[in-house]
Amino acid sequence: MIRATYHAVTDEPEKLARAIAVEETVEVPEALIDEAIDRHIVGKVEGCDRLPDGRFALRIVYPPDLVRSLPDLLSVVYGNVSMMEGVRLAALELPPDVLARFKGPGFGIEGIRELLDVHGRPLVCTVLKPRGASDEHFAKVAEEFALAGGDIVKEDNNLLDATQGDFERRVGRCVEAVRRANGKTGRKCLYFANACAPVDRLERTVEAALRLGAQGILIPPLLLGLDVVRDLAARHRLAVMAHPAFSGTFFEDRRHGIEPGILLGTIYRLAGVDISIFVNHGGRFNYRREECDGVARALRAPLGKVRRAFAAPAGGMTLERVDEMAKEYGPDTVLVFGGAILCDTGGIGKATEACLARVRSLFPGGPGARA
Amino acid sequence: MIRATYHAVTDEPEKLARAIAVEETVEVPEALIDEAIDRHIVGKVEGCDRLPDGRFALRIVYPPDLVRSLPDLLSVVYGNVSMMEGVRLAALELPPDVLARFKGPGFGIEGIRELLDVHGRPLVCTVLKPRGASDEHFAKVAEEFALAGGDIVKEDNNLLDATQGDFERRVGRCVEAVRRANGKTGRKCLYFANACAPVDRLERTVEAALRLGAQGILIPPLLLGLDVVRDLAARHRLAVMAHPAFSGTFFEDRRHGIEPGILLGTIYRLAGVDISIFVNHGGRFNYRREECDGVARALRAPLGKVRRAFAAPAGGMTLERVDEMAKEYGPDTVLVFGGAILCDTGGIGKATEACLARVRSLFPGGPGARA
Repeated sequence: MIRATYHAVTDEPEKLARAIAVEETVEVPEALIDEAIDRHIVGKVEGCDRLPDGRFALRIVYPPDLVRSLPDLLSVVYGNVSMMEGVRLAALELPPDVLARFKGPGFGIEGIRELLDVHGRPLVCTVLKPRGASDEHFAKVAEEFALAGGDIVKEDNNLLDATQGDFERRVGRCVEAVRRANGKTGRKCLYFANACAPVDRLERTVEAALRLGAQGILIPPLLLGLDVVRDLAARHRLAVMAHPAFSGTFFEDRRHGIEPGILLGTIYRLAGVDISIFVNHGGRFNYRREECDGVARALRAPLGKVRRAFAAPAGGMTLERVDEMAKEYGPDTVLVFGGAILCDTGGIGKATEACLARVRSLFPGGPGARA
Repeated sequence: MIRATYHAVTDEPEKLARAIAVEETVEVPEALIDEAIDRHIVGKVEGCDRLPDGRFALRIVYPPDLVRSLPDLLSVVYGNVSMMEGVRLAALELPPDVLARFKGPGFGIEGIRELLDVHGRPLVCTVLKPRGASDEHFAKVAEEFALAGGDIVKEDNNLLDATQGDFERRVGRCVEAVRRANGKTGRKCLYFANACAPVDRLERTVEAALRLGAQGILIPPLLLGLDVVRDLAARHRLAVMAHPAFSGTFFEDRRHGIEPGILLGTIYRLAGVDISIFVNHGGRFNYRREECDGVARALRAPLGKVRRAFAAPAGGMTLERVDEMAKEYGPDTVLVFGGAILCDTGGIGKATEACLARVRSLFPGGPGARA
């Protein structure tokens, strides 16, 4: 069964639980629910437990047959619940037959590591920005970063192109620059192009990125549609890095929304995300450590045959935090440094080298040392 | 210029306003913003005004050139703001050159009225549910409702089909039933099929609905992707009824998120929505009257050449509320009665007739009387 646990502010936990179970499956007054529909379709209330903060944990199980796709899943476990005050989707367990419907990330942690031939340590990623800078500038930054041993160059989520031509010119130039650097270093720095394009240009955008030599795309699943991302990942051999734009609303009010680990972890993996960027605590945004750890955990937890994905804490991280982040998140992490590397007074190359040296010293043994 | 107003909890309104203007356009430390980029790309802070509740209204204008598509617009006005605590997108003004990029609803209020040949009064809509009932049952409900003079039959958002065949069988049967009824009444009751399908089946689903004779689709833009809906509406001659599933999170916390009128009104119109269903106050969900009125206002306000759209208040409405809703929302409204019509002790036909009689008596004059 699909087991969803909702944390709810309520005086009538059993009544609310039944209301959710009905709302999410049949959405009719009780009088219209006959025995067969109640047995086969309506969610079942498994239990209601009082939480230490006075809320109730409402455990509801839904028949797996109701869910054949990602839109089905989102609709059944959270569609109309999104409109219920004081109700938060706090946990989600999916049975093997539901998980088997999802291909998940095309690469996952192991696949990305093979592309890069880097093992046993966090990856270091930088960001091409700001919007408005020239392609020459971006190519130069990408090249310096790759020459200094950086692992992943990603385009900023604000690089929204006026035309397909603008996109292809930039990606072509930057991929070429990374390739040049890789030729010198013997390494395999990866390039992720920003594929946040209108739906009718998306296919062309993704195809162009791959044709030009990018290994992956940066994409905001909640802005473009989670199933759009799943569909792209299922049809193309490309790595998917998810940007959290438009996602924050689900997390801000801790008495509503969805637990970040479920959305940015479990559901993103079902949508084919290989690397999930999330806002780290202590940066520009106000996220809690336990929430961030929950995302990282959900990205790597067993999930049927769905591959594990990288946690990518970001959002105003400074290079001084490498030790702390490496310790907190462990080796299967992408450390995203945008401004910190781009603005370093010693230059991009030096900052990247220093960052990688530190990462390597923190994860000395194993095959990771070779990269 | 694109003018976005954010209501924010802050002690440093100017600083936060600049941070938003930078975050949403270039997302780099100030040191990386040169004069040209600051002038042409970065948002400009127009002003910060203290609100009666102690928050600040931060007015920021963004260059219209940054926005060529719906993903661009969502990204620029709200992408990373979604992750900022205590910041709500409270108002949005779009200039003619941005609006000109959007086709908007294919029908709008006037177009839907022409399809139906009903003018000057609210439309009455019912819902086929619950999931699990037979196609015969749904067809019978649709026929009774149409025979009694109902205007729109929509499929419930929970009717998520296992296969394309299931979808086509139901839609075919129900459209046929409505057609039969229309043949007897001489009226033109419309049918909206639930197109919440995985992206790789969406095109086939929509084409089948139209081929089988449905005039429109029911679709949840925030679950499937706003630009997915825009793209469908732009390419097909079909009426779009938007379901609010997955949208509620944007509204629950009044110190965060997006004002409902902007998302379910303005942005939905840009996404091609002809009829926007929203949760009415005083029903199963906890929405405020002024928020509902704001949605209705935004659906009908001038917006370049983008057509006006119907407001469809719903969510546990009873037939006793017809007068109140008609008065509050006026003639350009779709009154959605699911359970209330389906469960009426007098039967679906009688309930529908009574509802329409009441609506006609409230809007007697004008050409509406003829329908």
